[in-house]
Amino acid sequence: MMLNQTHDLTRRSWIESANVADSDFPLQNLPYGVFRTAADPSALIGAAIGDRILDLRAAARAGLLPDAVSPACGQPELNALMALGAPAWSALRARLSELLGSDTCPEGEQRARVSACLVPMRDAEMLLPARIGDYTDFYASIHHATNVGSMLRPENPLLPNYKWIPIGYHGRGSSIVVSGTAVRRPHGQLKPADAPAPVFAPCKNFDYELELGAFVGPGNRLGERIPLAQAANQLFGVVLLNDWSARDVQTWEYQPLGPFLAKNFATTISPWVVTMEALAPFHVPAFKRDGADPAPLPYLTDATDTARGGLNLTLEVYLLTAQMRLAGQAPHRISRGNFQHMYWTLAQLLAHHASNGCNLQPGDLLGSGTVSGPERDMRGCMLELTWRGTEPLKLPGGEERKFLADGDEIILRGYAERPGARRIGLGECRGTVLPAN
Amino acid sequence: MMLNQTHDLTRRSWIESANVADSDFPLQNLPYGVFRTAADPSALIGAAIGDRILDLRAAARAGLLPDAVSPACGQPELNALMALGAPAWSALRARLSELLGSDTCPEGEQRARVSACLVPMRDAEMLLPARIGDYTDFYASIHHATNVGSMLRPENPLLPNYKWIPIGYHGRGSSIVVSGTAVRRPHGQLKPADAPAPVFAPCKNFDYELELGAFVGPGNRLGERIPLAQAANQLFGVVLLNDWSARDVQTWEYQPLGPFLAKNFATTISPWVVTMEALAPFHVPAFKRDGADPAPLPYLTDATDTARGGLNLTLEVYLLTAQMRLAGQAPHRISRGNFQHMYWTLAQLLAHHASNGCNLQPGDLLGSGTVSGPERDMRGCMLELTWRGTEPLKLPGGEERKFLADGDEIILRGYAERPGARRIGLGECRGTVLPAN
Repeated sequence: MMLNQTHDLTRRSWIESANVADSDFPLQNLPYGVFRTAADPSALIGAAIGDRILDLRAAARAGLLPDAVSPACGQPELNALMALGAPAWSALRARLSELLGSDTCPEGEQRARVSACLVPMRDAEMLLPARIGDYTDFYASIHHATNVGSMLRPENPLLPNYKWIPIGYHGRGSSIVVSGTAVRRPHGQLKPADAPAPVFAPCKNFDYELELGAFVGPGNRLGERIPLAQAANQLFGVVLLNDWSARDVQTWEYQPLGPFLAKNFATTISPWVVTMEALAPFHVPAFKRDGADPAPLPYLTDATDTARGGLNLTLEVYLLTAQMRLAGQAPHRISRGNFQHMYWTLAQLLAHHASNGCNLQPGDLLGSGTVSGPERDMRGCMLELTWRGTEPLKLPGGEERKFLADGDEIILRGYAERPGARRIGLGECRGTVLPAN
Repeated sequence: MMLNQTHDLTRRSWIESANVADSDFPLQNLPYGVFRTAADPSALIGAAIGDRILDLRAAARAGLLPDAVSPACGQPELNALMALGAPAWSALRARLSELLGSDTCPEGEQRARVSACLVPMRDAEMLLPARIGDYTDFYASIHHATNVGSMLRPENPLLPNYKWIPIGYHGRGSSIVVSGTAVRRPHGQLKPADAPAPVFAPCKNFDYELELGAFVGPGNRLGERIPLAQAANQLFGVVLLNDWSARDVQTWEYQPLGPFLAKNFATTISPWVVTMEALAPFHVPAFKRDGADPAPLPYLTDATDTARGGLNLTLEVYLLTAQMRLAGQAPHRISRGNFQHMYWTLAQLLAHHASNGCNLQPGDLLGSGTVSGPERDMRGCMLELTWRGTEPLKLPGGEERKFLADGDEIILRGYAERPGARRIGLGECRGTVLPAN
């Protein structure tokens, strides 16, 4: 994707909160979400700018947006916009950048019309950004796969198919919730290795998984493939994703068909979909295979993807326990990784998914799988951070954690930054563990 | 479920084609589907009766249906009706039985009004009956699990969790198609055990799987469970389901997260949803565990389910090859099994699914898993019938099959019958294999 005026580091918004150095939502970002306010219970599409939301339905009605995207901007979910495809997405972004830029929208009548469409973020409740049809979860971090494999099969951590196949499986769409939704500790069948029989009880080894979620654009028809060279254009944007996991349930249930009730009780995503165009300045080469790694098969190989399919995106996990919350402490960062350590690119995940003719649709969500990196503090879940509970996390207030306790809040944060580009934030993905009922 | 007048064996319809002994759709069945006609491209809900479809939108508009269900009957899909719950389903069924019964709707004005809502089946194109949100596929036949396990692990065919957990996993919703849709042979990564590397090529070991699909009714809220005693009331009805499978893709990809591209290129269902109420006369005891089998955990145990949770439903698979079609031959039956051999009941599958608080929604589809029985001719897929291709099927015209060839059509049929009850048919689930593209 070509960089253009919407990426220009020097441009500022006339909304001053967007120009603060650490704002997640500067003029160069412009992510999309769905919100509602107490004043209007309708679900509305908005674009985030600083601490404001531009109500796109209102902007469309005011005649401020391109005709080709205005109907989609009036919908209660992003699916119709996702279906329009990359040229329409670019046109909308360019127009929003123009309307919100201090250089391109000087004080005057037009700025007043735009102002009338702004809503303070603090007055908005964020909703799921899209009607998610199918949700697929991948396993694209070789560090995560190796760590988890080491616990199960120390002599042979990585399965033989890992370096050939972007391993993935279908997840549950109905239980995807938006950031801020409390998540109940599930019951499940638990069977310690030395017990003769399982019991049905609240999960003990409750975990989070740090992932990136990617929303699909127009998609493909059933029976048709998406070539890797066209896959990047099918990606609308990304969110933070927490793939909550009941590890003890997973251990006992997952053979032979994969995780099921260990995962499908809840998945949390952040509300703002940061577009691939906003992230264009942060593309980096795909994972560098070493001599022992096979080259991907031709359908998973594309020169542009190899050169620029990776994403330099910092991803952090914070933990806030109930005790810390009472003590007024700040959330404690327990890991910081980067998406560029993923073995497969987002485009490879998408091209592989459609390689058998499986039809992808606007609003489908692809989870990357747990984002872990080569270093210890880059591990993206408690299972890895505590090495199955054998090395508990020590928290600043003196508490320890092997897995999550009731009342614990997990906060995912993400941002892209590099010299010469404006920092782009993903916002937050939060969820607090409720006790089992 | 109590039997009532709608099950009365002696009652007849004034639509004579419904009274033929082998009709799938007698007055006692009244399954629901969605259709359209050349005359009206709208998707319409209908009930099948003999060789006719009663257009329920038209019937509702004519004031013939109960007020509580009329709005749902005017929708283009069954979801709203599924959401209404068992009492509303019963009320609609009772009313349809009355309108279509020769005793309850004698010749006259009312019969004429009903007649005006009838459409010949031959003029209708059947569509998917519901907007399927999430599709889950189970593995509830112990005979299937044992056969497949025997091929992979002769010394230990059944995994230790099988008799405790109704094993299931999430499938793909977008690629579910209605009977009659041709299915393209997928490409995928194939790796013979002795090859150093996989290749991306058309699947060679193309298979079908005979399953029953069950549609969910009102469902549950996220974080709440559905007790087994209430699970049967959550089941709206069943269809035939063909879980097409690329066995060679599956072998290479399925570790550690389960089948993915081997399955998600297409799943075919029959168009008529036969209600659980229509099948009430055919309930039988759940699978009889022997002394070596553990009793299910309490959340999977209910006296009524044990006594009546099984379903005496005959399921058949027919194969029609291109050569047979050219020669004018009839489809050849390659297996005949019965759903009463399933280890887990449909209600147990549903209660287990919601046991961690996973929210089920109207229109969600639960696949039973391949229905295989204790006898050789009860095996529900080619993998089992040909024992992984080692014992090819011999067809009447002299052809042999290890797996499916291009042009092969698989036809699933199902029906319930017993002395003292009217035969209830599921109709057909058909699909022809197209060559890879």
